[in-house]
Amino acid sequence: VGILERLSAGEVVIGDGGFVFALEKRGYVKAGPWTPEATVTHPESVRQLHREFLRAGANVMQTFTFYASDDKLENRGQTLKFTGAQINEAACDLAREVASEGDALVAGGICQTPSYLSCKSEKEVKAIFKKQVDVFLKKNVDFLIAEYFEHVEEAEWAVQVLKATGKPVAASMCIGPQGDMHGVSPQECAVRLVKAGAQIVGVNCHFDPLTCVEAVKLMKEGVEKAGLKAHYMVQPLAFHTPDCNCQGFIDLPEFPFALEPRILTRWDMHKYAREAYKVGIRFIGGCCGFEPYHIRAVAEELAAERGFLPPGSDKHGSWGAGLEMHTKPWVRARSHRDYWENIKPASGRPLCPSMSTPEGWGVTRGHADLLQHKEATTAQEMKHVLEMQKKAKST
Amino acid sequence: VGILERLSAGEVVIGDGGFVFALEKRGYVKAGPWTPEATVTHPESVRQLHREFLRAGANVMQTFTFYASDDKLENRGQTLKFTGAQINEAACDLAREVASEGDALVAGGICQTPSYLSCKSEKEVKAIFKKQVDVFLKKNVDFLIAEYFEHVEEAEWAVQVLKATGKPVAASMCIGPQGDMHGVSPQECAVRLVKAGAQIVGVNCHFDPLTCVEAVKLMKEGVEKAGLKAHYMVQPLAFHTPDCNCQGFIDLPEFPFALEPRILTRWDMHKYAREAYKVGIRFIGGCCGFEPYHIRAVAEELAAERGFLPPGSDKHGSWGAGLEMHTKPWVRARSHRDYWENIKPASGRPLCPSMSTPEGWGVTRGHADLLQHKEATTAQEMKHVLEMQKKAKST
Amino acid sequence: VGILERLSAGEVVIGDGGFVFALEKRGYVKAGPWTPEATVTHPESVRQLHREFLRAGANVMQTFTFYASDDKLENRGQTLKFTGAQINEAACDLAREVASEGDALVAGGICQTPSYLSCKSEKEVKAIFKKQVDVFLKKNVDFLIAEYFEHVEEAEWAVQVLKATGKPVAASMCIGPQGDMHGVSPQECAVRLVKAGAQIVGVNCHFDPLTCVEAVKLMKEGVEKAGLKAHYMVQPLAFHTPDCNCQGFIDLPEFPFALEPRILTRWDMHKYAREAYKVGIRFIGGCCGFEPYHIRAVAEELAAERGFLPPGSDKHGSWGAGLEMHTKPWVRARSHRDYWENIKPASGRPLCPSMSTPEGWGVTRGHADLLQHKEATTAQEMKHVLEMQKKAKST
Amino acid sequence: VGILERLSAGEVVIGDGGFVFALEKRGYVKAGPWTPEATVTHPESVRQLHREFLRAGANVMQTFTFYASDDKLENRGQTLKFTGAQINEAACDLAREVASEGDALVAGGICQTPSYLSCKSEKEVKAIFKKQVDVFLKKNVDFLIAEYFEHVEEAEWAVQVLKATGKPVAASMCIGPQGDMHGVSPQECAVRLVKAGAQIVGVNCHFDPLTCVEAVKLMKEGVEKAGLKAHYMVQPLAFHTPDCNCQGFIDLPEFPFALEPRILTRWDMHKYAREAYKVGIRFIGGCCGFEPYHIRAVAEELAAERGFLPPGSDKHGSWGAGLEMHTKPWVRARSHRDYWENIKPASGRPLCPSMSTPEGWGVTRGHADLLQHKEATTAQEMKHVLEMQKKAKST
Repeated sequence: VGILERLSAGEVVIGDGGFVFALEKRGYVKAGPWTPEATVTHPESVRQLHREFLRAGANVMQTFTFYASDDKLENRGQTLKFTGAQINEAACDLAREVASEGDALVAGGICQTPSYLSCKSEKEVKAIFKKQVDVFLKKNVDFLIAEYFEHVEEAEWAVQVLKATGKPVAASMCIGPQGDMHGVSPQECAVRLVKAGAQIVGVNCHFDPLTCVEAVKLMKEGVEKAGLKAHYMVQPLAFHTPDCNCQGFIDLPEFPFALEPRILTRWDMHKYAREAYKVGIRFIGGCCGFEPYHIRAVAEELAAERGFLPPGSDKHGSWGAGLEMHTKPWVRARSHRDYWENIKPASGRPLCPSMSTPEGWGVTRGHADLLQHKEATTAQEMKHVLEMQKKAKST
Repeated sequence: VGILERLSAGEVVIGDGGFVFALEKRGYVKAGPWTPEATVTHPESVRQLHREFLRAGANVMQTFTFYASDDKLENRGQTLKFTGAQINEAACDLAREVASEGDALVAGGICQTPSYLSCKSEKEVKAIFKKQVDVFLKKNVDFLIAEYFEHVEEAEWAVQVLKATGKPVAASMCIGPQGDMHGVSPQECAVRLVKAGAQIVGVNCHFDPLTCVEAVKLMKEGVEKAGLKAHYMVQPLAFHTPDCNCQGFIDLPEFPFALEPRILTRWDMHKYAREAYKVGIRFIGGCCGFEPYHIRAVAEELAAERGFLPPGSDKHGSWGAGLEMHTKPWVRARSHRDYWENIKPASGRPLCPSMSTPEGWGVTRGHADLLQHKEATTAQEMKHVLEMQKKAKST
Repeated sequence: VGILERLSAGEVVIGDGGFVFALEKRGYVKAGPWTPEATVTHPESVRQLHREFLRAGANVMQTFTFYASDDKLENRGQTLKFTGAQINEAACDLAREVASEGDALVAGGICQTPSYLSCKSEKEVKAIFKKQVDVFLKKNVDFLIAEYFEHVEEAEWAVQVLKATGKPVAASMCIGPQGDMHGVSPQECAVRLVKAGAQIVGVNCHFDPLTCVEAVKLMKEGVEKAGLKAHYMVQPLAFHTPDCNCQGFIDLPEFPFALEPRILTRWDMHKYAREAYKVGIRFIGGCCGFEPYHIRAVAEELAAERGFLPPGSDKHGSWGAGLEMHTKPWVRARSHRDYWENIKPASGRPLCPSMSTPEGWGVTRGHADLLQHKEATTAQEMKHVLEMQKKAKST
Repeated sequence: VGILERLSAGEVVIGDGGFVFALEKRGYVKAGPWTPEATVTHPESVRQLHREFLRAGANVMQTFTFYASDDKLENRGQTLKFTGAQINEAACDLAREVASEGDALVAGGICQTPSYLSCKSEKEVKAIFKKQVDVFLKKNVDFLIAEYFEHVEEAEWAVQVLKATGKPVAASMCIGPQGDMHGVSPQECAVRLVKAGAQIVGVNCHFDPLTCVEAVKLMKEGVEKAGLKAHYMVQPLAFHTPDCNCQGFIDLPEFPFALEPRILTRWDMHKYAREAYKVGIRFIGGCCGFEPYHIRAVAEELAAERGFLPPGSDKHGSWGAGLEMHTKPWVRARSHRDYWENIKPASGRPLCPSMSTPEGWGVTRGHADLLQHKEATTAQEMKHVLEMQKKAKST
């Protein structure tokens, strides 16, 4: 059964979690370029992560093709020995292999490009997308996702390219309630994406779960007010980000190597899943920071609605029930919902604050510092950004 | 080259990270019993984690045999379809398979038993250990580790059983600077373990890295003051635990399902590795909470001393250097040591404190509530512990 | 020179700080009723506090007549031996006595009444105000302030009563950027108050300084957009309240006996004074929590604009300069602006969070639980509110 | 009845609070020199503070003679127009005037001197003390206190000078459980002070209440173990200082102008008073940070033991009972002990940590940077300390 049939039938479709962050921690993705060449170099690591999300309850295996556009694969000194097509094809094969081990669909995904930030033309940007989409068609994925767009215009272009395939199209922006980088509201973004051809709209990445749910709620209000129809999706961060401005966690000083204290617990995920469901979102997954146990928590929270628990729950007692088997009596005493639902977990870091001040350099599309180039970042460029950083801190 | 030869030559030997916590998050271990039957049911998940630690720089593949003693495998309603021997044999095979893919030794590990807590005799407890050790001998592991003991007496018994094999023996207790559950100091524990036959002594689990290093430092002082000789090891938690008492993180209200905000960053691991090295510890690894990137950070900090970087560093620029390839200039500006070394990461949780009050029920060896039994915890037992919890909270 | 002349001339007029909180801590005001009978019972304590604010730089001595309306003076078991008139007269005498010791004006103040919350008629409420105003006229105060109103309607009534005297009238509501208890925006509140006759409008109490400044900024925008003219005042809390909803600090669980960790430093006050000045506010003072040194900090920040330092600065080196005289060299090293301007002071409370969840019972004007009555709160009433509290906490 | 008779009878004697910090905030003491010339320049401010402490329940009026030794009065550019004798005499008169308004004794106090830090001889230092003591004798105070000594040797000298008067002598050091600046333990300090002639020993200032109580407990153990006898006193800070090292709050980066978030609530004081009482301390007061309401909380906690409430409790319902008279029902719901006893007050400062790293320059008696001189701190000296500060921060 296809994605649209499932959603139209009112089914809850559970997405997978974040590949780049999880595989970075496992040693297969490089923070900085964040490209997915591991599909070729270490396929077993990608396959294993797919399997873990499947076991956790995911119904969608997204091809690990994030940032696998040709312009991104040769940005700032990146020296890969594989073509974009090779990486994308391997990603499709891995996703399909694992999807067929359970009840999951394969979704081919594309995302924002350096070309757009560099002000390339619509034609050029669409050509970049087209190359990835050709692989998805060849490998016959089940549906397509245009995700992680921070400018609605680029998202529209992406949707148009995907739409031409005849496959179902989902569109997901990395925005919060404040809207895209030029201040276009979630409501308007959603309307434009639906009009461009997306059957599913929503947000992913950049913000924490409840913030993302709030943004999708606004999208839904916009779509309904415009008399349009759509399904809704959400795939947020697994990091608490109460201190973000419009660009999300990229602007936090902790990004990307000191986000640990912000990681959500499984109990936070129960709240997220419930809230997303209440708002009317039915495609509920995760992005950066989501580990398999986070997805499992979503599946466990919605077990009653879905009618079943995920396979991975054979290793997890609901709401901590497994602790009844613990040796120590004071740990057994923690084996119930009331305990975990109300816990306020300490950071163990008395010298650290609970919020940060996000940076906001005001640098976006078209700015010289954002332009794509093949060569490595120069010492001159580094000196320049360090000066900007110093200036930003002092104000 | 064997473990003792390496350590005697002054080499830094890097241990692996924590299996039960990592595989719990991936969906293959159940929190509560924490037993390693995944070696039989999902060997690919165990193999993959071994590979990731190897890639991260680990020189030791510990068999995933934690809590795989027969008394623990049938505790409180556990209903496994495999014998302890099957689990232990599969674990040895997986560890050996991956170890042979790189420069690593296989270490067979045993740990504390419900039998000891239930006041079984020395003979009975040793018989439990012996069954695991027989597998290790059959599978010809490279050396043996008695780890995660909170009572020095039980640790001595374990060392004695291991010593009889003729293999090198390491002994590691889960204690902090305050000593074992009966107040035996780290200094005295170490002396007793060396006298029992351990060539390597140290601590693992229960406390954060700097606390564990402090405890091993005390052990070293004790051993040296007694005119004995030993090598030293440390395999701490990857959680900040400034608020623990003598039983470590088990007593924290967040254990085991809300420890996320306490997870160490890779930069915290640099400090840990440096401090451990300074103190004279040469077998440096991790326990619960350590993910592959944490071990890689240890290997990167000590790259100069070891003369090489781990394989996994091909996906990690030292001290954030990979961020030079990031698209956004303000993230590129974070690609240097000074930035990450001094960051005070926010928790993103303004409603949560930075420390907790640990529980301290005063329940230890011999207490009725600790006795092993095959049957599931009864409703009566649960009611009793919930009452104790309530009482503990009100004081 | 009168208040309007000063403001029209562009002078900065510095208000005094909070009497009820300061005198509660000194032992002369009872938290709960918060009434000012100390003007009669302990005039020396009131006189001394006036003097301290004068010394700190205040140009306005507000009569200590807060909540000195007859309906409030006999609310819920209050058993005072003085009439409202006696209290108000003594307050005027004390304010005048101290004002004449320096360059300060006397302002008579009235505030919200239980009668309004109890839905008494406009006529009845105005009669309550009138009784206080009669004393102010008899004692010939310099101008009048209607302050601490959370409903714009009651504030308008108050302004109308004050306006009839012919004295200059200031109107200050205890609202934040979200507006009054019925959602009337600060912009509209300001316009209505100006139209009712107030020459000075602004906010006081309930929120922290920067929030209050933001609210007055919105008021100013509203007044200017309506083509009206006014002067602006702000007298905020000296407590940080980032976690408040529309009713301000009353809803915080820490109100009123555990607000200590929120108290602003003198350096926070420098930022406040600067920000208020930038926005165009010229009557700048304080409310609950403001101690004399907070007002002095306002005066010191604006010393250049005003052309002089307050008398109290003879006991305070600007930006910590007095520490140059400290015995210990590491304290002398803290005697400069850069040090104090950037400090992030620790709470010393690792078991406490940085924010709270405000209560929001949704109880306002007209609700049975708000009705004024002379008798003490009954056991039945107490039982009822404790049940409501329990319910509020569980959601 | 004298102090020794009261203590011998088992009475609880309540001390007053901190004058220098309270009067600094009121505008009469300059932070840096911290000298008490306000006794001459603004006697009404000193008298009023005495009265507030008396009203709060204090049985001891300490003369406001802190740092009023002649060497301190002319340190580092201090240019006072009064002699030490004038300041001390005025202080005695004010204390006596207020003491006679209630049930209080007058205690003359001396404290550490720049002369000792500058390594002046025993004879010279004792001469300094003698000058203050002569005034106390002339003014016939009831007993004498040598307080705020961080070196036990100087404290002994002070006790010897006081002892010679024939008046009862109390000795109080500003140390914590780690002992004095040279590592002399609290136990040994206490024994030496008793042997020098002190009938009452204890600690004041530098640490928070529970830390000070712990230090006095150690003193008591030392005295009892030595077979000696003494009464015990404690007058701690009203600031939480969990992050201090041996020199106490002077080393915290927040000292002295950003300590606000650390201020204890009245409920913290209940715990303090109870704990001090339990340990056997009977002279219980406060030092820096203690405002009148803090002392009143001590008196209220021990009301049952003392048999009466302080006068100031007529404006304070026990454990928040006064809130029963509050207009708003959700505030009335806070009028009970259980609510306030368990509150964990938020800081309202999400950008700030809960603990700081104390400085520890290792500069103490005899160091060039500590030497007393009459002239103002030179630019050269300031440059030097700023360099030391920079160096201290970078390690």
